Amino acid sequence: MANTKAELLTIGDEILFGQITDTNSQWMSKELDKVGIRVVRKTTVGDIREDMLAAFKEAEQRADIILITGGLGPTNDDLTKPLLAEYFGCKVEMHEEALTDLTEFFKNRGFELTPVNRRQAELPVCCEYVKNLLGTAPGMWFAKNGKVFVSMPGVPHEMKRMMTEYVIPKLQRTFKTDVIFHKVIKTIGVGESWLADEIKDWENALPSHIKLAYLPSLGQVRLRLTALGGNRENLRKEVDAQIEELKKYAFKYIYGYDNDKIAEAVGAMLKEHKKTLAIAESCTGGYLSHLVTTVPGSSAYYMGSVIPYQYELKVSQLGVKQETLDKFGAVSEETITEMANNVRKTLNADIGVATSGIAGPDGATEDKPVGTVWIAIADGKQTTTKKLQLWKDREVNIKAASIAVLNLIRITLLKSIEINN
Amino acid sequence: MANTKAELLTIGDEILFGQITDTNSQWMSKELDKVGIRVVRKTTVGDIREDMLAAFKEAEQRADIILITGGLGPTNDDLTKPLLAEYFGCKVEMHEEALTDLTEFFKNRGFELTPVNRRQAELPVCCEYVKNLLGTAPGMWFAKNGKVFVSMPGVPHEMKRMMTEYVIPKLQRTFKTDVIFHKVIKTIGVGESWLADEIKDWENALPSHIKLAYLPSLGQVRLRLTALGGNRENLRKEVDAQIEELKKYAFKYIYGYDNDKIAEAVGAMLKEHKKTLAIAESCTGGYLSHLVTTVPGSSAYYMGSVIPYQYELKVSQLGVKQETLDKFGAVSEETITEMANNVRKTLNADIGVATSGIAGPDGATEDKPVGTVWIAIADGKQTTTKKLQLWKDREVNIKAASIAVLNLIRITLLKSIEINN
Repeated sequence: MANTKAELLTIGDEILFGQITDTNSQWMSKELDKVGIRVVRKTTVGDIREDMLAAFKEAEQRADIILITGGLGPTNDDLTKPLLAEYFGCKVEMHEEALTDLTEFFKNRGFELTPVNRRQAELPVCCEYVKNLLGTAPGMWFAKNGKVFVSMPGVPHEMKRMMTEYVIPKLQRTFKTDVIFHKVIKTIGVGESWLADEIKDWENALPSHIKLAYLPSLGQVRLRLTALGGNRENLRKEVDAQIEELKKYAFKYIYGYDNDKIAEAVGAMLKEHKKTLAIAESCTGGYLSHLVTTVPGSSAYYMGSVIPYQYELKVSQLGVKQETLDKFGAVSEETITEMANNVRKTLNADIGVATSGIAGPDGATEDKPVGTVWIAIADGKQTTTKKLQLWKDREVNIKAASIAVLNLIRITLLKSIEINN
Repeated sequence: MANTKAELLTIGDEILFGQITDTNSQWMSKELDKVGIRVVRKTTVGDIREDMLAAFKEAEQRADIILITGGLGPTNDDLTKPLLAEYFGCKVEMHEEALTDLTEFFKNRGFELTPVNRRQAELPVCCEYVKNLLGTAPGMWFAKNGKVFVSMPGVPHEMKRMMTEYVIPKLQRTFKTDVIFHKVIKTIGVGESWLADEIKDWENALPSHIKLAYLPSLGQVRLRLTALGGNRENLRKEVDAQIEELKKYAFKYIYGYDNDKIAEAVGAMLKEHKKTLAIAESCTGGYLSHLVTTVPGSSAYYMGSVIPYQYELKVSQLGVKQETLDKFGAVSEETITEMANNVRKTLNADIGVATSGIAGPDGATEDKPVGTVWIAIADGKQTTTKKLQLWKDREVNIKAASIAVLNLIRITLLKSIEINN
């Protein structure tokens, strides 16, 4: 079986000096793994001529595919383009298609091309031009003696788009790769060890060519099934059959697969049930609304939000009773109940949800430590509230509370199906 | 001048496959940088004999110091120890001090030493034993021909403690090191090439021992100054003097240094000017409020937000005139002007800001393509509006528009200082 090897080469002093975190190479590893290309080495060198040329040569000796990120800006400290031209022995010239795309890119934003930016459309004549749909530095594809070098920008969203839309499909066409089939099952609302316990009979019965991994993150656990074999379609069918079996143990936790996001799953459920959503968020400060509105087409079910961060706005904007606030405080079951019900009515939605809590580091009291958060959902007939005791970290608390609300919406909609059937 | 070079070598399939994020190497880079040791390369290889031996040899040719993490567990797939013994040509034997420490470690936790764990106290006879205060895998220090190899566990807290308490002090004693001083200047509201053009005279006049790098990200450009020399305090003064000079060219773009975030900088300005902020966000859907509320203590100046995602809520919640919406549409200068002014009044704030646009992928019209966003700021005396033409990507547009609003607040507050002085 062919075993195609890749090396990831990152260019940039800022990574060597520890000034930025390299998140690109982990993402690239995962994506390559999915199509059966194995990363055998990762290398990072600085913006130094000799180091870069040496790294090109070494990588070519070890790997079939060399994916380079970084060092592509328009300024003089960016060396990747001239050095690749030198390495492959060809000159750099203006590339007409790249210039057209670049001019268009600037025109769409109402800018003229400056001479410095115009140089970004110059490319080594021995490479194929790779479009950058989200930025100004083009990608470059070099093929030589059965080896492929691809140079991409280091800006994560530009690189990811280029990899997904162009580089990976072309690598799949160019190289004969092993068959690996992955599927990730996304669960929410259960901890890793509890989930492991509930599904242990299923896990123990998995065939030896299908492997399971637990990948926990904030409030969620992803289960990754990896199947190895000769035929992708057969592997897919086997994995799908195993997932059907898994549902007998863990149906209520599963909200999606692979890159599905919880906000997308909840959005699809709201759409299906023809329900609209309104949000009142205090301690989550906009993050819950952001998760909901990141989903394209969310305007089909999302009405809007009120973020009454200050005490007085809970009264003036949401109609929470002053006496409720005075008696029980903003972080209480009584206040969160009014918030969820009132935002539902005020924004004219079917479902209202709310958050109120102590994100930290300030604001804690003796009986309400940092991480105390109340969440609620109201649908006009019934109100469900829940108290969360989260962590000591502000950002983590904001994110965990927002995800807990999305799961509360999911569970409420699941129950309404059960009741109606 | 001595220039001590280090290479970081990470061992582990789990990093190559993208299953875990390598946070160790960034931390190590920063710590080494502080004591003037320059990381010239980072390499990651899998748990494979040939790849590891090749990596040892290559690293020794390039660097003075080779810091290895990972591959030190008690199981058979952990190869670092036997391969280092092979590489340095010595045998592995039980190390009495390591065995004592290991026995103690287990005893303190109420466990007996198992035979598998006992093997962790065996060490190559040609290395110095490095204590692991937080785990069971010892570190190893090898010195040969003026080069140093250090092997450490990959578990972050074990490695960090070992580096801080033993490895870094010993490296400082062993090598005569350069002093490196970095400072990052954070700019906003100007593209990399425009900025390069505006500051080119300053850049060209930089002395040869101070290097400049441009690090662009969404709507922002970081400028990193790196100074090399004999005395840290002198370098700091020189860099600060260069920054003062830079301000003559780029004052209006600079909002902070090193790890400062734009929302923190804006928050500090609002606090200083004793101004409160209210937000009306449509296309940014909560992300702008999230950036503002991520800053601890933001309740000192942030009142709250309204997110009138649906057309009708712009009227009912924000008091935008129906005729304005009908005549000009939601994405227009007229609507954004009313949104900013009305949210300021309704939420009882000094400053109101607003966003309305087409984040995409849906909602575009012929004269309003995806990426068209209006932003505005109103302070009761004056309203400033701005039309942005952003990208084709929903998430990027949401983030870029939010950052543009933060910069608009910053610029408005800067101007108010100029007017008042």
